Amino acid sequence: MTQRTVEHGNFSIERRFDAPASLVFQALTDVEMKRRWFAEGDGWVTESYALDAREGGHEEGTFRYQDGPPIRNETTYLDVVDDRRLVLSYCMFIDGKRISASLATIELSPEASGTRLIYTEQAAFLDGADTLKTRKEGCEQLFDTLGSELTRLAA
Amino acid sequence: MTQRTVEHGNFSIERRFDAPASLVFQALTDVEMKRRWFAEGDGWVTESYALDAREGGHEEGTFRYQDGPPIRNETTYLDVVDDRRLVLSYCMFIDGKRISASLATIELSPEASGTRLIYTEQAAFLDGADTLKTRKEGCEQLFDTLGSELTRLAA
Repeated sequence: MTQRTVEHGNFSIERRFDAPASLVFQALTDVEMKRRWFAEGDGWVTESYALDAREGGHEEGTFRYQDGPPIRNETTYLDVVDDRRLVLSYCMFIDGKRISASLATIELSPEASGTRLIYTEQAAFLDGADTLKTRKEGCEQLFDTLGSELTRLAA
Repeated sequence: MTQRTVEHGNFSIERRFDAPASLVFQALTDVEMKRRWFAEGDGWVTESYALDAREGGHEEGTFRYQDGPPIRNETTYLDVVDDRRLVLSYCMFIDGKRISASLATIELSPEASGTRLIYTEQAAFLDGADTLKTRKEGCEQLFDTLGSELTRLAA
């Protein structure tokens, strides 16, 4: 039989944005707004991207970095509380091979002037094709990009 | 706004069964076989149960304990490796209210005479309606019942 392994791991990322929770939620759930910070970036080609962030809805994207292999995510939104919470499951694929399955929770809390975001990912990395460290770093970059986008929108 | 909370937690359960991995896998993925140990039990009424344990397939069940409220699960199978591994996401509902979302991994390893099963659940308990301890105890009971069913099948 083929060697099969699973490495489980969890991490959290916290950010504070100078934007109301409703705008942060919109940037997480509106397909055109999310596409800008999530799917596009220097050197990246977006082959497909779709988002329906309602309970039971799906998100999918296929991306390439320069002339690298296709990187794909497939997401299902499980729990959605407007302006407050998203719980989703997602899988990542490289070149058609599933490298991970994750449960991800995004919690938004209004603060005096802005919003605190806590992202928690509980992941199963499959067959040694990805690591907790790499995943956390990738997510940190995404939330930094979201922060820049929110700053741009506020300006 | 309504008070919203998320408690994250993980646990693992390990069992050894005197049955080949192929039979354990069958008991996890065949609707009639799984229904017996998963959906039926003294005092429980099964209002609905369906299982399609292929990648992208769904499982759903609605159960009542005596005259209690409906308890429902909704599952999606994410990764399926015959006789070796299942990765799934699932939500639990009591009386229509979502109480948790989880990522669950089942790993099967053939041993000299039997199979080792490791179940790992990474859970998000929503709005204080369930706990890690209760969930782990419930899963331990289910895998004990699976063990009894495998013993019955071997006899």
